[in-house]
Amino acid sequence: MLALAGYPLANRFVFLDTTGHPSAGIGDVMILDSKEEARRRQLDDFLAKVDLVTFEFEHLPLSLVQEIETQKPVYPNSRALGVCQHRGEEKALFDRLNIPTPAYRLVDSAEALEIAARELGCPVVAKSVTEGYDGKGQSVLRGPAEAQKAWKEIGHSQLIIEAFVDFVREVSIIAVRGRNGEVVFYPMAENVHVDGILRYSLAPLPDLSDTVQQTAEDYIRALLDELDYVGVLALEFFQTRDGGLLANEMAPRVHNSGHWSQNGAVTSQFENHLRAIQGLPLGDTRARMPTCMVNVIGREGDLQALLALEDAHLHRYGKSERAGRKLGHVNLLAPTHQQLLKRIDDCAALLPGAPQPRFSFKPEQ
Amino acid sequence: MLALAGYPLANRFVFLDTTGHPSAGIGDVMILDSKEEARRRQLDDFLAKVDLVTFEFEHLPLSLVQEIETQKPVYPNSRALGVCQHRGEEKALFDRLNIPTPAYRLVDSAEALEIAARELGCPVVAKSVTEGYDGKGQSVLRGPAEAQKAWKEIGHSQLIIEAFVDFVREVSIIAVRGRNGEVVFYPMAENVHVDGILRYSLAPLPDLSDTVQQTAEDYIRALLDELDYVGVLALEFFQTRDGGLLANEMAPRVHNSGHWSQNGAVTSQFENHLRAIQGLPLGDTRARMPTCMVNVIGREGDLQALLALEDAHLHRYGKSERAGRKLGHVNLLAPTHQQLLKRIDDCAALLPGAPQPRFSFKPEQ
Repeated sequence: MLALAGYPLANRFVFLDTTGHPSAGIGDVMILDSKEEARRRQLDDFLAKVDLVTFEFEHLPLSLVQEIETQKPVYPNSRALGVCQHRGEEKALFDRLNIPTPAYRLVDSAEALEIAARELGCPVVAKSVTEGYDGKGQSVLRGPAEAQKAWKEIGHSQLIIEAFVDFVREVSIIAVRGRNGEVVFYPMAENVHVDGILRYSLAPLPDLSDTVQQTAEDYIRALLDELDYVGVLALEFFQTRDGGLLANEMAPRVHNSGHWSQNGAVTSQFENHLRAIQGLPLGDTRARMPTCMVNVIGREGDLQALLALEDAHLHRYGKSERAGRKLGHVNLLAPTHQQLLKRIDDCAALLPGAPQPRFSFKPEQ
Repeated sequence: MLALAGYPLANRFVFLDTTGHPSAGIGDVMILDSKEEARRRQLDDFLAKVDLVTFEFEHLPLSLVQEIETQKPVYPNSRALGVCQHRGEEKALFDRLNIPTPAYRLVDSAEALEIAARELGCPVVAKSVTEGYDGKGQSVLRGPAEAQKAWKEIGHSQLIIEAFVDFVREVSIIAVRGRNGEVVFYPMAENVHVDGILRYSLAPLPDLSDTVQQTAEDYIRALLDELDYVGVLALEFFQTRDGGLLANEMAPRVHNSGHWSQNGAVTSQFENHLRAIQGLPLGDTRARMPTCMVNVIGREGDLQALLALEDAHLHRYGKSERAGRKLGHVNLLAPTHQQLLKRIDDCAALLPGAPQPRFSFKPEQ
């Protein structure tokens, strides 16, 4: 999707894949070899072909990014990537910048996990400090007695244990920082997860106060400036009953909760990321209309029926069906939130296994 | 641009180029060989890779399209392409369907050209019946005495001679016909040509009556149905002082005067063409806002400054600079026509050699 947004800017792309399972690329796709000599040649070849480097996935070897950074500009930089790869460092950064987060402990044994569970008060969420994507590598402890079992299940040498938050909803903010330090913000989205996977992101929110938006902007700007970050950063929050925001996690890339911007905003997060890393002026982040991103997960929906929905915009990833896999998304636009909710219901009914969405707000009548 | 619109629908593309100078393709690009044996193998290879075939350029060998049509579905069909490749046949079809056009004569000698110029009354425009694109292969005769010179200059065996029309403006309509015969229409655009090259297309028009839009829709629907056409068809008109429409020419493809739809309409002409040829439901053609497409011709503008314009959307083609060459376009959106005209002026000032646009309408105050 970055490449699709970049072609109209006359950008061309070379993809370096570290997973062995590249997404469909538009341009050269190089799958990084595991043998050192071949890997070195590939990397030289890759570096010779590109002016600058970005990434759309944070679970890639930090050392590789640091190596690339000695040869070509990398945006965002490896420091930002490193922080985002480690939940412990991320939390420490939130603390240092006075960004509130749920109470947490770092533990490196089942015994320490049990103590943390007792201190924080169960239920708690235990997560490996590294990796983890869409609810993977996580476990919920209903009592301290479950510490041994959870420790084994997750199987990592260090975990972060987080207190449960009594939140009203999950929201996120997407911001973009240019090479000159300019920062722009998208309107916040409400995100609905099911089984740990994002299902719906809706923006802008009819009941989000300017104060809350401003608070989120202050938080993410602090992160961007501290990390000398260039490109799109996403920051997810729990919103509590009193309207307060508790930072959950951040992602150093274009983010699923910003996909609505492809059709719903004046400039998409993808184009703005490309503008940022090239030192071009950032585009307008305003929403044209209330918009909802609906993920297509596991099974494709009825293509004919989806395309017949009013103001529905399909984005398929060209992947084969598999339980829990994100296969694409549909962006729905409507003049009012009330009409949008109706369209979301209609869309969800066409997607196998999609739950009816439950948003926290009441639309204007 | 078709491919960029198709990737989100999970379409994949193989490009067969007949010119030797392919545009940057996203996917396989095959340049058709001139040697028969190699050409045959290539064509078999191409046909084995694709489910169906369309074209985005009408000056390709009709026999090739007919050959392909025996193996795979081609939309639009070769009959439509044939008509559009021959101005004489095109005019005859307009006549048969009672679509008014400027008075014309077909001539096959300099002598006949001189007689036609006398009968129609000079000035007249002489055009070769085949090919011709953006004012190429044309000549204006100010008097019958110029017939010999024009005949030589154009150098074709048959010409069409058209009377000059005292028109107020040039307008066009883009329509899309699905495989099931469903037809949708975009709001008409006003087109400003300079030196025979399209510079500006603006839609929708604040002063275009529903009757004129309806008339244009009736004309283009008659063409679509008559040709059993599938995909996007463009029809250009001269609009006369009394509001009447005289058909100038049609183009069997996505059309420059419909590029505004990429950002200004709910569904772009590119996506709708792809939906049509695949038998998918056609998308909403409504304009979200007054929009103007500004062509970038000959020289690239100031990228930084263009991207800093409000609600400006750049579409670069990745071509090198050359006088008269279309290098890209900028789509400008604004809430009102008055604001749009201001943005067009600002944009034109950033494009080397771009004339200030002169549209026929007066914007609402």
